[in-house]
Amino acid sequence: MKTYNNPEIESWNELIQRPVINQKELDQLVNSIIENVKIKGDIALKEYALQFDKVTLNNLVVSTEEIEKAKKLVPQELKDAIQIAYENIYIFHKSQEAAETVIETTNGVKCWRKSVAIEKIGLYIPGGSAPLFSTILMLGTPAKIAGCNEVILCTPPSKDGTINPAILYTADLVGITKVYRVGGAQAIAAMAVGTETIPQVYKVFGPGNQYVTKAKELVQQMGTAIDMLAGPSEVLIIADNTCNPEFVAADLLSQAEHGPDSQVVLLSDNEDILTKCQMAVQRQVQLLPRKEIALKALENSQSIVFNDLEECIEFSNRYAPEHVILASENTNSLINKITNAGSVFIGNYSCESAGDYASGTNHTLPTNGFAKNYSGVSLDSFVKKITFQELSKQGIENIGEAIEIMAEAEGLFAHKSAVTLRLNEIRNDKN
Amino acid sequence: MKTYNNPEIESWNELIQRPVINQKELDQLVNSIIENVKIKGDIALKEYALQFDKVTLNNLVVSTEEIEKAKKLVPQELKDAIQIAYENIYIFHKSQEAAETVIETTNGVKCWRKSVAIEKIGLYIPGGSAPLFSTILMLGTPAKIAGCNEVILCTPPSKDGTINPAILYTADLVGITKVYRVGGAQAIAAMAVGTETIPQVYKVFGPGNQYVTKAKELVQQMGTAIDMLAGPSEVLIIADNTCNPEFVAADLLSQAEHGPDSQVVLLSDNEDILTKCQMAVQRQVQLLPRKEIALKALENSQSIVFNDLEECIEFSNRYAPEHVILASENTNSLINKITNAGSVFIGNYSCESAGDYASGTNHTLPTNGFAKNYSGVSLDSFVKKITFQELSKQGIENIGEAIEIMAEAEGLFAHKSAVTLRLNEIRNDKN
Repeated sequence: MKTYNNPEIESWNELIQRPVINQKELDQLVNSIIENVKIKGDIALKEYALQFDKVTLNNLVVSTEEIEKAKKLVPQELKDAIQIAYENIYIFHKSQEAAETVIETTNGVKCWRKSVAIEKIGLYIPGGSAPLFSTILMLGTPAKIAGCNEVILCTPPSKDGTINPAILYTADLVGITKVYRVGGAQAIAAMAVGTETIPQVYKVFGPGNQYVTKAKELVQQMGTAIDMLAGPSEVLIIADNTCNPEFVAADLLSQAEHGPDSQVVLLSDNEDILTKCQMAVQRQVQLLPRKEIALKALENSQSIVFNDLEECIEFSNRYAPEHVILASENTNSLINKITNAGSVFIGNYSCESAGDYASGTNHTLPTNGFAKNYSGVSLDSFVKKITFQELSKQGIENIGEAIEIMAEAEGLFAHKSAVTLRLNEIRNDKN
Repeated sequence: MKTYNNPEIESWNELIQRPVINQKELDQLVNSIIENVKIKGDIALKEYALQFDKVTLNNLVVSTEEIEKAKKLVPQELKDAIQIAYENIYIFHKSQEAAETVIETTNGVKCWRKSVAIEKIGLYIPGGSAPLFSTILMLGTPAKIAGCNEVILCTPPSKDGTINPAILYTADLVGITKVYRVGGAQAIAAMAVGTETIPQVYKVFGPGNQYVTKAKELVQQMGTAIDMLAGPSEVLIIADNTCNPEFVAADLLSQAEHGPDSQVVLLSDNEDILTKCQMAVQRQVQLLPRKEIALKALENSQSIVFNDLEECIEFSNRYAPEHVILASENTNSLINKITNAGSVFIGNYSCESAGDYASGTNHTLPTNGFAKNYSGVSLDSFVKKITFQELSKQGIENIGEAIEIMAEAEGLFAHKSAVTLRLNEIRNDKN
């Protein structure tokens, strides 16, 4: 980790930079994948499976039999753990349901909002070394609560064409309607444009590599909504002398093991604490199976001492991290000062992995400084909020003249006339 | 208007199409504007003002004196009308504030969400024939309620360099911090990247022509959030034999007068009603100052008779209109069937212009079918929702084992270790 001691505020802009990924050259490749899926449909998907996943697929759809078989393969211990996580995620996201309150803004003018599920949702779950069933919980649970009609899932098959049982088990648990063995940019394309087998959806969710991310960016421009553009995962920890340096080190490493481009930042008002945490990191990293990845991530990471905790918070707000951990016993005065963050972990017992799996909050969060202007995934992400208004005769009488005056001032006489005709009819009826 | 009678469901996909605008060629032009603003800052803005707005600007900032002077120029009648609209918009958007409820998902595991204002907001208000002060109300009012620190406004100057007084009056009313005389794609660029004079913001709102829309699309890819990609405005009216055809015609024309590319759709279960509405349109359009624009829009518009109102609603949901008007006295059974729409106007006295100006709902709404997957602007658009979690020792004891099992199953051992260290410490303390 690079260490800085009380850096000048002029240097902060430099320190909050994330690595820049040159995605320009990806544009053409991913665009051609999308076009190809649009034209050739399932055939393109099978060709890409052979090319990228080295697997010949007969059937893109995962059958009911495969799902039933998978359910038997998942150990009971893991099923129980998933159930605990599912329940907490369900409770927290269920609490996000918005009440439909009718507001009478003026006598006779009633307005309200109604949350209506987005009808068709597509989830993408990457393959590779880790079967990210936890992300299925994070996306499938709110989709279920929202009442999305169709929730499909694409995930790349392993070389024998199978899908990890934990993925299939969790998909079934949250009520996903169909699972397809399709990965990469072509999966995003298939869900955005639809193929013979894969239905077109209105919004695509889920993490992925740079090809997947680029595909999400491109389909967004074509009109498919996306959850967010995910960059490398990040944690920023603010630790004071009441922290436990071993815990801090473990949390830093939780982030570092995600990938060599993970962002890890440690702030403190106390240089000794910083040193203790760094030493604990050096010790603990040796024990990790993903040690090489974690060490690479640590190379790009920063430890910074500031004058006081206020300044740590200020820097954190500028950095706008995906995860913030307040590693301290005295967090009360700090919590309300956080203005830019995806998710905040308070105190020495709130490790990031709690939020990653089972506390109930969502782990799909804004990275790359997007916490300044975007929220993480929540129940809101699976609904549209439609507004309604109902004006009685009294209502249009009360606000009609104001509308006429404003419409005329904006030069929109048909807008004015729509009100005038109604007001005239009401006046005539009265006479 | 093109008229269809009970079209086959196979033809619906054709009927719900919006005109396709070829934006590819815009890409290069608008990209070069953004790059130029990035490099040359204020100088670029002044050069574009000369080139596009035919005006030589000395000062981009609108001074306090100009604002004070403008406030005196706005007629009292218009000020009163704006005040009525402002109050209704304020009441409805204030009611959208989310309570911060702490949820204990498991004993000792507390989770909550907090809405935090996006710190820096930029509004764009187009110039041209109509001074859209109503849009300032729609965007500035929720920004004020949210508590956004900095809310700036860019709007193109007229040829003498001035800004319409109603724009300045309304901006002042909603507490906008600074107004700049900059228009077009260069205004969006300036707010996204910042110049010597114009501060960089985190999210840009507001309507505009195809250059402005393209600029919003491009800055979104660069990390600046945007309200939405606005296409031509749309209304879909469902009218039955309890409608007032004169009102329906006036509402269709309110939409048609917006621009030649406005989308107007009329559905009914009753052919006579359709004919009556069309005849009223022909009569009323003759009286409009913007007659030529409205006639052009009507050329591309559709009237469709369906078997029953259910089918009308089904078609409407497929079309996903920005505005839906239920022109009927019997709307109760229809309201809940609407699944895709921006804003809904219920009954014969809820004209679209009520929502455009003063009912209290927002008029910045998803067009072009985006009502399938996007909401209109609301208080939510001006905040991020940050999640928090606080686990006590009891809390991590309750869910720790589940996290360990799940982390191990995903191959993330540092995630597991962060929990194990804490559980061990708690157990050691107990012994």
